[in-house]
Amino acid sequence: LSWTVGPTDKPHKEPREFVPAEVPGAVQLDWARDKGWPSVDHADTVADYAWMEDSWWVYRTTLAFDPPNEDERLFFVCGGVDYRFQVRLEGEILLDQEGMFTPVELDLTERAEPGQVLEVLVFPAPKTPGEVGRAQANQSVKPAVSYGWDFHPRLIPLGIWQPAGLEIRPATYLRDAEVVYELTEDCSRAELALAGRLSQAGEVSLRWRLAAPDGTVVHEDTTDVFGDQFELDTELADPLLWWPWDQGRPNLYHSTVELLSADGTVLDTRHTRVGLRRVRLVMYPGQWDNLSWQRPMGPAKPPITLEINGRSIFCRGSNFAPPDVFPGRVTDETYRPLVQAARDANMNMLRCWGGGFVPKDGFFDLCDEMGILVWQEFPLSCNRYEGTPEYLSVLDAESRRILQRLRGRACVVLWCAGNELFNTWSGMTPQDHAVRLLDRNCLDLDPSRPFLATAPQYGMGHGDYVFLRDGEEAYQMIKRSDCTAYTEFGVPGPASMETLREIIAPEELQTPRPGGTWSRRFAFDAWDGHVQTWLHLETLQHYFGEFASTEDMVEAGQLLQAEGLRTLFEDARRQKPASAMALNWCFNEPWPVAANSSVIGWPCRPKRALQTIGRALRPVLASVAIPKFTWRAGEEFCVTPWILNDAPVGQPGGMLLLELALGAATLPIGEWAFPGVAANTHQAGPELRLTLPNLAEQRFELTARVLDQPEWNSTYVLLRARDAR
Amino acid sequence: LSWTVGPTDKPHKEPREFVPAEVPGAVQLDWARDKGWPSVDHADTVADYAWMEDSWWVYRTTLAFDPPNEDERLFFVCGGVDYRFQVRLEGEILLDQEGMFTPVELDLTERAEPGQVLEVLVFPAPKTPGEVGRAQANQSVKPAVSYGWDFHPRLIPLGIWQPAGLEIRPATYLRDAEVVYELTEDCSRAELALAGRLSQAGEVSLRWRLAAPDGTVVHEDTTDVFGDQFELDTELADPLLWWPWDQGRPNLYHSTVELLSADGTVLDTRHTRVGLRRVRLVMYPGQWDNLSWQRPMGPAKPPITLEINGRSIFCRGSNFAPPDVFPGRVTDETYRPLVQAARDANMNMLRCWGGGFVPKDGFFDLCDEMGILVWQEFPLSCNRYEGTPEYLSVLDAESRRILQRLRGRACVVLWCAGNELFNTWSGMTPQDHAVRLLDRNCLDLDPSRPFLATAPQYGMGHGDYVFLRDGEEAYQMIKRSDCTAYTEFGVPGPASMETLREIIAPEELQTPRPGGTWSRRFAFDAWDGHVQTWLHLETLQHYFGEFASTEDMVEAGQLLQAEGLRTLFEDARRQKPASAMALNWCFNEPWPVAANSSVIGWPCRPKRALQTIGRALRPVLASVAIPKFTWRAGEEFCVTPWILNDAPVGQPGGMLLLELALGAATLPIGEWAFPGVAANTHQAGPELRLTLPNLAEQRFELTARVLDQPEWNSTYVLLRARDAR
Repeated sequence: LSWTVGPTDKPHKEPREFVPAEVPGAVQLDWARDKGWPSVDHADTVADYAWMEDSWWVYRTTLAFDPPNEDERLFFVCGGVDYRFQVRLEGEILLDQEGMFTPVELDLTERAEPGQVLEVLVFPAPKTPGEVGRAQANQSVKPAVSYGWDFHPRLIPLGIWQPAGLEIRPATYLRDAEVVYELTEDCSRAELALAGRLSQAGEVSLRWRLAAPDGTVVHEDTTDVFGDQFELDTELADPLLWWPWDQGRPNLYHSTVELLSADGTVLDTRHTRVGLRRVRLVMYPGQWDNLSWQRPMGPAKPPITLEINGRSIFCRGSNFAPPDVFPGRVTDETYRPLVQAARDANMNMLRCWGGGFVPKDGFFDLCDEMGILVWQEFPLSCNRYEGTPEYLSVLDAESRRILQRLRGRACVVLWCAGNELFNTWSGMTPQDHAVRLLDRNCLDLDPSRPFLATAPQYGMGHGDYVFLRDGEEAYQMIKRSDCTAYTEFGVPGPASMETLREIIAPEELQTPRPGGTWSRRFAFDAWDGHVQTWLHLETLQHYFGEFASTEDMVEAGQLLQAEGLRTLFEDARRQKPASAMALNWCFNEPWPVAANSSVIGWPCRPKRALQTIGRALRPVLASVAIPKFTWRAGEEFCVTPWILNDAPVGQPGGMLLLELALGAATLPIGEWAFPGVAANTHQAGPELRLTLPNLAEQRFELTARVLDQPEWNSTYVLLRARDAR
Repeated sequence: LSWTVGPTDKPHKEPREFVPAEVPGAVQLDWARDKGWPSVDHADTVADYAWMEDSWWVYRTTLAFDPPNEDERLFFVCGGVDYRFQVRLEGEILLDQEGMFTPVELDLTERAEPGQVLEVLVFPAPKTPGEVGRAQANQSVKPAVSYGWDFHPRLIPLGIWQPAGLEIRPATYLRDAEVVYELTEDCSRAELALAGRLSQAGEVSLRWRLAAPDGTVVHEDTTDVFGDQFELDTELADPLLWWPWDQGRPNLYHSTVELLSADGTVLDTRHTRVGLRRVRLVMYPGQWDNLSWQRPMGPAKPPITLEINGRSIFCRGSNFAPPDVFPGRVTDETYRPLVQAARDANMNMLRCWGGGFVPKDGFFDLCDEMGILVWQEFPLSCNRYEGTPEYLSVLDAESRRILQRLRGRACVVLWCAGNELFNTWSGMTPQDHAVRLLDRNCLDLDPSRPFLATAPQYGMGHGDYVFLRDGEEAYQMIKRSDCTAYTEFGVPGPASMETLREIIAPEELQTPRPGGTWSRRFAFDAWDGHVQTWLHLETLQHYFGEFASTEDMVEAGQLLQAEGLRTLFEDARRQKPASAMALNWCFNEPWPVAANSSVIGWPCRPKRALQTIGRALRPVLASVAIPKFTWRAGEEFCVTPWILNDAPVGQPGGMLLLELALGAATLPIGEWAFPGVAANTHQAGPELRLTLPNLAEQRFELTARVLDQPEWNSTYVLLRARDAR
């Protein structure tokens, strides 16, 4: 179908103008393209889009199709329209829906003729009266991030964000066909079922073929279907389990279902991939025994250790932000390099944060394939989502649809109602019906997957998001913390010069300061009352002094981010098993900004930190616990070497050498003949000390070198204090 | 119907002997009565009952009834059978049910004839294989307390515990008729609906009459019913709200529903009482603002402040234990003096603890009438209730039935899945399906009532249960605590001499020590490894020295309990609004024991503490914060007077005098001209000091006397330290 789209100020008024529309896409993109506006990604033009969020938009197409045969049906299908909309055929309203995650499927067989006009009327962006900013999204299932965030401009996408078109189907087709399974306690046997519904009963049969990851067919069966529902069963002995990549292989079975007519014609087909794995949230080893017996007694901190196939896993990863301000232009090719970068950085988990949209299928395909665990939130974040009947009814429908779409995904291991809901700025509590409804829907539709009411929950921590606060560095903050999971923490870093040249006005490029394009790209004033966000120029100058150029500032800023995140990750890992996760805020970003705690700039430009934390997140490495970032001559340099091992196998003992590189000179600090390290455990070494000599250069390096295991080596950059020598 | 009952070792084997059965009752009571055993309440015979829990029991009756007319139906109805059972008519199984809370209703019209034999086969008590003690109840919805607790003997009741009999009903009768309502935000208007179902459609009408608490009819309406469902609506302006007694009147409207045939004959009638009130769990004033901003940030402590009709309430009360080891012999007359005693002790809340059975209707009638708030738990306590399909299916059915029975009760303000589920000894977490299922059922069937996953939840405290631990007294423990709610805490006290004479062997009465009847009545060894529970003889001797007689020990023990609980209650109240509840463990007991933290012995014998805490729980009183229990001459006696005000109205200012009574002498300590105290707030006075003179007697009294408000006066008993003079 070929679409046009136009704005109007009333739902029943003809738009003054139609422009060609790309589907999937967004009305904003169509309008800007037609008007020849420069890309909003790089040009300083966000303000020009402001009017669009309050407009009605009419998508229009003329139906063109060959009339279906008698035993066929004609459907208009669409994966999703953002956000509230009507579908009208020749002016008649066929559907009125609120919610972008529930697809459209309209049987037009008896209604439509070629040449008729089909319209999708998109309502203005939902806004709770009396609210401003993200709070305007607190009565809708529209992702809140686009109402303005500290890294996302106010730019609320609207329109058809998923593919749409006409489809001819046989009268009898597969409405659903889902593979469900249960593993025995020891995971040595899987009982599988293919369950689903037909559009109608008929003289049909089903052929179900299940192939192992290597393609070998392990089950094939053809069964007559009576009625419009079916359930076929089989079982597998010693199945190849799906594992996150660092624990094994992310094995995927291939299921093919064919619906056959009485004469053997294939009427419909479904291919799905099935990763067999069991997931639970469990208390960490010793947690029950370590409880305080102080009176009065409170409850235990709730479990946040993921157990996959009976094995407790430490989750190393990041928060996955929306990869684009426009979900409609996100494709598999948007996701692929990002997920690959997470994998290359040794991450085994991504948290899909409730401020953004639930990703498209391509994201989950990649995570399934690469063995990346996904923590998936519903679209609630940092707001008080009051449980009005209207809101709950949309949330109910949208969440059920999200659950039905994703519950077959091996990679999805955790549902969470939303982000920071029980914090002051949101003001929600476990009593809120929105949270209870999501818990209920997860229990009803997907009981085998864990559910969290929010993050942080009791025991867990979010923050800090700076390298230095009130004289305390990330190095010290993490060491005094005892969270069961670190599910957000960050250090901001400036964007690359390449990006800055694209987004900062040339005359401002060498003078980063509040106001102008630096502020509009979130280097300053990203938070109300926090001028130094996210460039943290004062912090950079504290460590590095005045910068001769923006190039120098970017280099130093990316170094500070990289070293800060490295210590946060490595120290959090040291707290295993009492801590079970370390996920930094954030991985990527939806829009090029001048500074952000992302480790990969839009659309996929790594900062220095990505490579550094990739080193910190190796399943096995030599790591050093370092008390602080800056040092001075004569000071006692006192650090502790560790062998960190998240791998499911033990590691051999060996010899670890600690060395300082001061300019060209290398100074040995000490050595540690470390013992063998058991699977999935760490080993701390002795504290090693050295009185620091004169530090000729401002930067110096600490290396942990492992004889015969050079792939475990780690090198840390440290600084001489600016007022020292 | 006239019943007999007999034991058998196989379900299909005729019992060797039948004895007359009382219905409602318990098989144990029937057997003991027939055999002339002495009452298990007083005699030391619990061990004689041990075999009965593993036996099958057959209740038998011969049906006697006048055959119903053509337009009538014959039913066998029973309010509940404890625990798993079958109903058999002439050997044919009509019903096989697990669960004591779901009533039986069997249409026998086409099946039964007079003279036939109806049997109820009761299965042995459920026991999880491989477990001992209360853990045997961890796969059933059988209250765990009867498997043995620190105040309850191992004695598992079985049998028909609710009324049972035949009932003739018209073919068309009221299956349900429930009054539901919604109040506007300001509670100034109520929308009411009468909703329900008929047994079948028919030419019938409904007459619905609603009368105000004083009997005035406020609504009357007769409506034809089409089909088998109905919903009638009305609304009330300025309704008389139901309040807990200390906040207003517990107003109850009277609803009468009559089902009328076409000729106006009354076919069926339902009377219910409706208390109109809104309940929420809210954050206490200032809670959101008082959150720590330490990084990393956790979530807020969840709300536990009850809001009734828009007003935050401080809950003062106690934990209501089962009033009898045999639910089957509990009647309205069991409940009445207990609930009256709670009311007389100025309690406005009772927590019906998950270890016991959900009370009978009479309990809720009394609480509705007297304005006592009820925190109702489902029957889960101190166990790991694993979410097996079998267990969840029974829990689902039983919890739905409990919800349907009680959701119309004004007094019930809080559902809670169970007691101490997230503590070490239970080992459950928010991930447990049993907890999630109960949350779901509450949301689905009773969304307007708050739900707690367990107590203690995060922020809340249970304990301590002793006066003195490791040198710390209750006086200090409560002052260093900052719980959002104190939902269990206790100080044990010995039973009255009257009770001790009934339960302790005469030759042991004057020599309380471990072993023998003292231990079997929980004065010693009530907990594994805790010999001094619950008599705490060593603590008593620490404060009072050796006792000349058991009479003296009882007097001292009851004093220590009373003064300990008084300070715990008053100090907890001082922490309002950050703390919202103070409920001691426990109010009553199911069986006469020699020592227990109950404040009222079985069946309804007050200990000294009941009267004392009744003083501490007056809505308005003069109270004194006292740092410790024992003092010595020359010491600085340093205390702080308060006016505590939980009333919904302000209190006038006045003059408070603090005085010490030392034998016959009265020593003024100081005075406080206190200002007016706003509604629902407290006022602390200045610290007042006095150097203690010689203390001639071991006990002395501190009095807070309020001029012109003598009903606010309080008197505290304190002790001279034993090694001082």
